[in-house]
Amino acid sequence: MTAYQQMTPAQLAQEVKVLREKFDEYKNMGLKLDLSRGKPDGSQLDLALPMMGVLKETQDFMTETGFDSRNYGLLEGIPEARRLMAEILELEPDEVIVGGNSSLNLMHDCVGIGFVHGYPGGKGGWYKEGNIKFLCPCPGYDRHFAVTQHFGFELVSVDMKEDGPDMDAVEELVKDPAVKGMWCVPKYQNPLGITFSDDVVRRLANLSPAAPDFRIFWDNAYAVHDLEPGKGDKLLNLMAELKKAGKPDMALFFTSTSKISFAGAGIAAVGGSAANVAWLKKHFGLQVISGDKVNQLRHARYFKNKAGVMAHMEKQAALLRPKFEAVLDTLERELAPAGVASWNKPRGGYFIPLDVMDGCAKRTVALCKEAGMVLTGAGATFPYGVDPRDRNIRIAPTYAKLDEIKTAASLLCLCAKLACAEKLLEQAKA
Amino acid sequence: MTAYQQMTPAQLAQEVKVLREKFDEYKNMGLKLDLSRGKPDGSQLDLALPMMGVLKETQDFMTETGFDSRNYGLLEGIPEARRLMAEILELEPDEVIVGGNSSLNLMHDCVGIGFVHGYPGGKGGWYKEGNIKFLCPCPGYDRHFAVTQHFGFELVSVDMKEDGPDMDAVEELVKDPAVKGMWCVPKYQNPLGITFSDDVVRRLANLSPAAPDFRIFWDNAYAVHDLEPGKGDKLLNLMAELKKAGKPDMALFFTSTSKISFAGAGIAAVGGSAANVAWLKKHFGLQVISGDKVNQLRHARYFKNKAGVMAHMEKQAALLRPKFEAVLDTLERELAPAGVASWNKPRGGYFIPLDVMDGCAKRTVALCKEAGMVLTGAGATFPYGVDPRDRNIRIAPTYAKLDEIKTAASLLCLCAKLACAEKLLEQAKA
Repeated sequence: MTAYQQMTPAQLAQEVKVLREKFDEYKNMGLKLDLSRGKPDGSQLDLALPMMGVLKETQDFMTETGFDSRNYGLLEGIPEARRLMAEILELEPDEVIVGGNSSLNLMHDCVGIGFVHGYPGGKGGWYKEGNIKFLCPCPGYDRHFAVTQHFGFELVSVDMKEDGPDMDAVEELVKDPAVKGMWCVPKYQNPLGITFSDDVVRRLANLSPAAPDFRIFWDNAYAVHDLEPGKGDKLLNLMAELKKAGKPDMALFFTSTSKISFAGAGIAAVGGSAANVAWLKKHFGLQVISGDKVNQLRHARYFKNKAGVMAHMEKQAALLRPKFEAVLDTLERELAPAGVASWNKPRGGYFIPLDVMDGCAKRTVALCKEAGMVLTGAGATFPYGVDPRDRNIRIAPTYAKLDEIKTAASLLCLCAKLACAEKLLEQAKA
Repeated sequence: MTAYQQMTPAQLAQEVKVLREKFDEYKNMGLKLDLSRGKPDGSQLDLALPMMGVLKETQDFMTETGFDSRNYGLLEGIPEARRLMAEILELEPDEVIVGGNSSLNLMHDCVGIGFVHGYPGGKGGWYKEGNIKFLCPCPGYDRHFAVTQHFGFELVSVDMKEDGPDMDAVEELVKDPAVKGMWCVPKYQNPLGITFSDDVVRRLANLSPAAPDFRIFWDNAYAVHDLEPGKGDKLLNLMAELKKAGKPDMALFFTSTSKISFAGAGIAAVGGSAANVAWLKKHFGLQVISGDKVNQLRHARYFKNKAGVMAHMEKQAALLRPKFEAVLDTLERELAPAGVASWNKPRGGYFIPLDVMDGCAKRTVALCKEAGMVLTGAGATFPYGVDPRDRNIRIAPTYAKLDEIKTAASLLCLCAKLACAEKLLEQAKA
């Protein structure tokens, strides 16, 4: 097949006609497909069912230090859960606070603490300083951007490159003292699926921000989410690099087991330097007595350590690989020949990013919707929901069943081709 | 025995000498007692152990509406948990959001939402308005006061009377537009153990605050915590009164199962009018996907409804009654004759409040500490930790074992008498 950009207007018109007919066939099928949600499916959740049997009525609820997990106390989490989460975050146990069920909530609270009280090194609550800015590598995670937008901060876009955020831009931008923080999903980034290179991590660790209370929000949500066990991406340890650089306070680390055990019923953690942990404990101590330590104990006893988590994640990977492959195979087979799109093949995480021709993402998503398929809104992965090139589409292949995914991927390819062919035809006519 | 205030200086001196000798005996016993903590003890927690067997590996995790509780979604909580918590709060299920594990956290977040965004009817985030004030009926719950102090608000003391806060004062104070809220523990108030009268609830419902976004923070933490089943205090339904008064938005309602099932591993809820619930959902939606719905399902299936909760609370009451009686009997026997203290006999809740002679609370607590017993710091139940009359002591008899409580209560009586006798002797000499 001829790539669309090499086609004559007549060929394009014919292609649009053919695609339209196929599209109408899909429309008449009354499909209900959904590739929008970065959610585990039921079979993935079932893998963690044995965890529910760990704390039976007859068993004891004492932590390894003899503290009753069913009672008030231990703001920082139970020791065995701190150790488990520290291993995942590659931090020391006393550098970790195990909180509630949601790392997003911890991130929100940490932004809130900055807004109301600031961070060590700064001048107090950011709200007193007026306009606050946060760096948003994009495409990125819409809920990150939304948190800082909600606090009234200005979202500053930074391009994501193949090895992480555009560090030349970041190094320039942090010279502005209004820039108080930066969002990062360093491993299997949402939505690109790439992992920050060693060079990017080192440059981040050596940033010299004008704001003394600047913080990198290091959301390591996919730390253990390799699709091919043993062949996953390696992420350089940011904390180790920060310590080398003499800047241990410059980042806050987040993760959760929401995509390991149960989504929303797992445990979440925040980590950082001694100064940051002391600061967070001081402020968290005013808002809560502790997270749910019974659930912490359940997780710690079931997974035991990172090796236990990795063994569990191998089972998840076995369920997820066919889904990712189904999408990637379809993209390769049905979309590559048209030459109007590109995508990554992530080695882990929850998403496949698709870039269509500039100006065609919204139209593609709209066409999919017309045919009964929900995708994440085009632009959602950019600050303020606006993709300046209108090209990025986030594919979330985890939740749907395999046969649905195959149909969905074919429909997506068809819609992308139709949107791009229409656009090229328009341009040719103009 | 002669009441201290009727004693001559010589009699007082003799009494101090005798008490001192007894005190030294206690000191030599090497006691380690703790009546400071409003915590359940292990036997109380054991009552909820069968709940751990409710969600076994083989059972299904679907809510009654077929939603998988193990997956993301349902910010407002699962329907059966909303119904349960609504019944406890005496609200409609759609007036309730079931959140995480901590009602304190929900209260903190609701204050935070006020600080950053304000509430419907107001002009946006309170931080833009400068000095914000909160009414603090006292003695009251130190963690309430601490939350608003942490946000930089001015804490305005309001006297607690036998039937609730001094409403004449409250009605005056809310004429100040800087007064944005008021803390209330309406039933078995912490620490007084009293329940707001119908008249107080009605006057609260009919307040006309100058601030259009004024909110009553109605922390119904002890809604179902009667010591004598069937003979508990009745609290008038504030929401019903607010609706009658045409002011349904003026209160936010809080409760949790921390003192029903497991402390810190229960479920918490916030309730309010349709406008408030919509507002909270909008803001909560930016910070979290949902609370832990597996734990919500566990609680809903185990307790089923309020009747199930009440049956459970009867078992707790059977454990708590002897502890409360031990303290009250000791106070009556050992402290009443001296005529230097007064106390309430609460019909529920977690605390017994003791008022000693003005200027003697700190000294009493210090003496107890010297003899090996921890009490809540004198003054802790007042804004900024300062009891203007230095007389209130909060006794928390739930956590210690019964025999410890008997010893502790005797020691407390001794220390209170010693502190008061010393004070009177000083005054007599001066």
